[in-house]
Amino acid sequence: MKTLTKFGLAATLIALPSLGLAQDGPTPGVNASTDTVFILNSLLFLVGGFLVFWMAAGFAMLEAGLVRSKNVTMQLMKNVALFSLAAIFYYLIGYNLMYPLGTWSVDGMLSGVWGPGVLEAVGVTAETADDYSYASTGSDFFFQLMFCATTASIVSGTLAERIKLWPFLIFTIVLTAVIYPLQASWKWGGGFLDQAGFLDFAGSTVVHSVGGWAALTGALILGPRIGKYSKEGRVIPIPGSNLTLATLGTFILWLGWFGFNGGSQLAMGTVGDVGDVSRIFANTNTAAAGGAIAALILTQILYKKPDLTMVLNGALAGLVSITAEPLTPSLGAATLIGAAGGVIIVFAVPFLDKLKIDDVVGAIPVHLICGIWGTIAVVFTNGDASLGTQLYSIVVVGIFTIVASGLTWFILKAVMGLRVSEEDEINGLDLAELGMEAYPEFSKG
Amino acid sequence: MKTLTKFGLAATLIALPSLGLAQDGPTPGVNASTDTVFILNSLLFLVGGFLVFWMAAGFAMLEAGLVRSKNVTMQLMKNVALFSLAAIFYYLIGYNLMYPLGTWSVDGMLSGVWGPGVLEAVGVTAETADDYSYASTGSDFFFQLMFCATTASIVSGTLAERIKLWPFLIFTIVLTAVIYPLQASWKWGGGFLDQAGFLDFAGSTVVHSVGGWAALTGALILGPRIGKYSKEGRVIPIPGSNLTLATLGTFILWLGWFGFNGGSQLAMGTVGDVGDVSRIFANTNTAAAGGAIAALILTQILYKKPDLTMVLNGALAGLVSITAEPLTPSLGAATLIGAAGGVIIVFAVPFLDKLKIDDVVGAIPVHLICGIWGTIAVVFTNGDASLGTQLYSIVVVGIFTIVASGLTWFILKAVMGLRVSEEDEINGLDLAELGMEAYPEFSKG
Amino acid sequence: MKTLTKFGLAATLIALPSLGLAQDGPTPGVNASTDTVFILNSLLFLVGGFLVFWMAAGFAMLEAGLVRSKNVTMQLMKNVALFSLAAIFYYLIGYNLMYPLGTWSVDGMLSGVWGPGVLEAVGVTAETADDYSYASTGSDFFFQLMFCATTASIVSGTLAERIKLWPFLIFTIVLTAVIYPLQASWKWGGGFLDQAGFLDFAGSTVVHSVGGWAALTGALILGPRIGKYSKEGRVIPIPGSNLTLATLGTFILWLGWFGFNGGSQLAMGTVGDVGDVSRIFANTNTAAAGGAIAALILTQILYKKPDLTMVLNGALAGLVSITAEPLTPSLGAATLIGAAGGVIIVFAVPFLDKLKIDDVVGAIPVHLICGIWGTIAVVFTNGDASLGTQLYSIVVVGIFTIVASGLTWFILKAVMGLRVSEEDEINGLDLAELGMEAYPEFSKG
Repeated sequence: MKTLTKFGLAATLIALPSLGLAQDGPTPGVNASTDTVFILNSLLFLVGGFLVFWMAAGFAMLEAGLVRSKNVTMQLMKNVALFSLAAIFYYLIGYNLMYPLGTWSVDGMLSGVWGPGVLEAVGVTAETADDYSYASTGSDFFFQLMFCATTASIVSGTLAERIKLWPFLIFTIVLTAVIYPLQASWKWGGGFLDQAGFLDFAGSTVVHSVGGWAALTGALILGPRIGKYSKEGRVIPIPGSNLTLATLGTFILWLGWFGFNGGSQLAMGTVGDVGDVSRIFANTNTAAAGGAIAALILTQILYKKPDLTMVLNGALAGLVSITAEPLTPSLGAATLIGAAGGVIIVFAVPFLDKLKIDDVVGAIPVHLICGIWGTIAVVFTNGDASLGTQLYSIVVVGIFTIVASGLTWFILKAVMGLRVSEEDEINGLDLAELGMEAYPEFSKG
Repeated sequence: MKTLTKFGLAATLIALPSLGLAQDGPTPGVNASTDTVFILNSLLFLVGGFLVFWMAAGFAMLEAGLVRSKNVTMQLMKNVALFSLAAIFYYLIGYNLMYPLGTWSVDGMLSGVWGPGVLEAVGVTAETADDYSYASTGSDFFFQLMFCATTASIVSGTLAERIKLWPFLIFTIVLTAVIYPLQASWKWGGGFLDQAGFLDFAGSTVVHSVGGWAALTGALILGPRIGKYSKEGRVIPIPGSNLTLATLGTFILWLGWFGFNGGSQLAMGTVGDVGDVSRIFANTNTAAAGGAIAALILTQILYKKPDLTMVLNGALAGLVSITAEPLTPSLGAATLIGAAGGVIIVFAVPFLDKLKIDDVVGAIPVHLICGIWGTIAVVFTNGDASLGTQLYSIVVVGIFTIVASGLTWFILKAVMGLRVSEEDEINGLDLAELGMEAYPEFSKG
Repeated sequence: MKTLTKFGLAATLIALPSLGLAQDGPTPGVNASTDTVFILNSLLFLVGGFLVFWMAAGFAMLEAGLVRSKNVTMQLMKNVALFSLAAIFYYLIGYNLMYPLGTWSVDGMLSGVWGPGVLEAVGVTAETADDYSYASTGSDFFFQLMFCATTASIVSGTLAERIKLWPFLIFTIVLTAVIYPLQASWKWGGGFLDQAGFLDFAGSTVVHSVGGWAALTGALILGPRIGKYSKEGRVIPIPGSNLTLATLGTFILWLGWFGFNGGSQLAMGTVGDVGDVSRIFANTNTAAAGGAIAALILTQILYKKPDLTMVLNGALAGLVSITAEPLTPSLGAATLIGAAGGVIIVFAVPFLDKLKIDDVVGAIPVHLICGIWGTIAVVFTNGDASLGTQLYSIVVVGIFTIVASGLTWFILKAVMGLRVSEEDEINGLDLAELGMEAYPEFSKG
């Protein structure tokens, strides 16, 4: 039996000192076979996809931890239901809108073939097996779906503790069936933003800012929670009911983000691709660390006591900030990009409160503001990026999302009302809307 | 550095419009080498296996959330202990019974060779590397073990809040060493049900109904909890202590199910296999979504308020329902099969209560009834399935499990008693049996 | 469509009875291509790495569950911050110290190339693709980082409920930047312990005992919590606030350990390697099961009531015990090695209390004592191991860690003080140091 040690790479280093190649690239070795490339690319989508699926649980735990216990059941319900609706409506409508090449049909949906529209239209051949994104259609659909669902997850936290269940869920349908896929097609469907040279590797703008804009629009239309701002304009802190759950949710999101960013390489069937996926994993991790530590130090300095919810949101801010370009930065640059996200959070959270925009979990600073920051930061490390194009794309996507989601919120408000009654809000949405408490045995303090 | 975009597959579609191949199949490309096939197949077992392992945590959280806080420590203990016992006794006895080809020996168990019986008897050669199920023995054992443990996990929820620890654990030993492996060999060991043409891809019958029958038999022998049914026959709801944990458990199970169903393809070393695994991932996900949304809508209609525990069990019902055939359905069909599971749950839970069968977490509707439904539903999408054979196999497995587990429960009842005293049940099993509270600092409401 | 069954390996067995090969080894089949080997090796690091990352969440949940609710926010903060600091300082300093071949530079850190020192110095070529440890540098860094962070996670549990935040975090920096990497280089960097023949597959000594020694040194300098030992020397139990979280944390750690031990094979690009990874997964699992069941039975016998926290620590003890050699034992031997770990825990926890060493979560018995046990146990199943060398290495690493961490603790104590004031400790660290409660709505019992 061979003796196992951990210094394999160090040994390699001894043999190969200073080759001066700064990153993993295609090698003179024997390439993987076309089938192997296909399998490995598909596998990246599957593993990446289940990691991003796991982020749905992360959002659920984060939000359940940051709302008051009288609204926890509702927040859990929303998170399970929004993911389920995203799965169904992205399949029925969204995927086709995003990659608008198939022929959608209800028949196809119910027939024995795989799915509607584009999913039926394409088979798998080996002809383009050397294409880096070549993978099984099912794995691609599975992976893309999770990004759509993530966008919807972002919205629920901001609007917690006051929005009714059904209008929120109907908004989720519109978001996942139409709003997200349409704008995503502009970049990832090969549309005009992509052709303009917009760079957004894993979706700081396409996913996170879109969720953030939809949340912001909703928060403005919905208004703040009762008791959040005093008549004199003071901000009244409403602490979350369970910081352990919030921390668990953050760790889950952190873990899922390896799939979110790493899977967005779209391929690992070559040496160059798997080297890139590896860099992305390392950069994603260090950006989160940078965001957390920046928020830790800054809250210590500003408030004399470090603030755990800021540290958690700092880690998430770091993750969002690196999402537009997790590949080209060095580890040091990735840490700094993430740390800037953490700094942004510490100032953006009270700033939103000054504007009386009530964002229960801090999703707007994390996903919208750091999504914008991350999209801009691409220009620092990727020579192909143009600041003008990045800003132009941020604005285009922003205006579209504000208009489309604003319209949807207004229609829902007119038709069925968005907000629970004042009495229901005070008593908690769990009893009013669901008749069920999350923690029935525990007396409230 | 190459510009990365996400529209790789869309680009592929442009190049390859409408090839009309409905699913991924073997290609004219260069096949993976025999070793690569072996490695990828083994890797599927390892990743699938650790995902199914994670389901043990899912059951623990789901059940801890759905029992009262006075019984939480006990439920946690049972879940950790049952998994550990399953690991040991499936190794010592069960794996050999299920694949009865090796020569079991205590010596083998303790010697330097890998394991008992069948595990020692086989080496690895490349001769059959083109066999689709060819993989390392250790990875197969690891994967199969997790299915056995899942079967045991199903039982613990139903019998919560009244069964003593040790008889439950001894039942677990019998279930994982003998009952599960014996009947599993009839299908997955190449036995008579398999030869009869019975189709059960990942175990709607072999795993879920078996766990469900064992739970049902136990529930009948054990009787309902004190206070669950009034003298006039009314059902008195006993709400779970922590719906966040129940939701977390559901998300964990949902994640684990990708390994449960996807890994049951048993291979991903060819383009066809990885395409199938991808379809299975997508179908598994959408079936869960269908089940959750069906339960959401139905409880809104029936009770005017959506019921979170029904929605969670609806998602699980969708997962069980698709487990017998996660490959052949279209996404639409998978959604509907899952949705039917969600509908079943909403009616089956009160129906069981009418029969005064007290199932604390709803495991019988989810795993037994939807396991049967899923096994029958195979005939809708898989032309190789025969309704007669499916029903015959459901009944054979059911009768065997009822008799074997019934006998075991009766012997345990006679020898050591199954149920805690009335006083202990009222005070909670945690203090009575374990002397330890799960939440000692929190006053009970 | 091919009929899918689960008896693939059984069918293989029929075809290939009793080949007498006890383990998977290189085959006469067609080897994977050099690129494929590289990709699969890197993939093992990525999957193994994200699983070990997940252990950070496991430690956070375990510790949050085992402290009193007044100290939960602090424990969460420490766990998020220590992981983040480990990520940054292992990158800045530690990785280079451990594999001391590169040229560290601040410039490199901020430039566009991948990272500092060693990471820049090496490229990737196919020349040594047949080297078993050949993989992308980024994946190796990602994987190794997680081991460093795990070492730091071990310390926080022992010192909970009394240590100040900042000295703890500064200690973490020293540990992850210097102490861990230096001693790890002696074994995994190809240093003198490795050359002496020391065997420690995944780090019973290098990771777990080092974390344990650092924790022990800290506990001795810090002293026990107020109220833990009465004036008459009696031990006063201080129960953890949430056993569900402790159980969740244990399951997370158990899951992560598949990456910890399995990934330490460092390669899965050959049939032999993936067979070894498979054996390691199975052995790791069964060792945990053995540890849990041993603690279950032993606490039943000794105390008449099984103790959940002992069972959880028993599972972790089994995992630590198998970590030095998860490959060569048979399943039976792995179960027994793990079970011995479970037995050790049951005696070591009260023994530490007798010495008035206050270890809040039992990390010293689990990680230090079972780390030593596991390192010694290598000699039972691995013929290449020498008891003398194992003991020598345990002692060398122990002395170094005690001296280095003791010095660090003493300096921190002198400069800024380690311990919160008596009043703050009684009121809880959350309010005193962070001004934030973990569960603000729940009245304390």
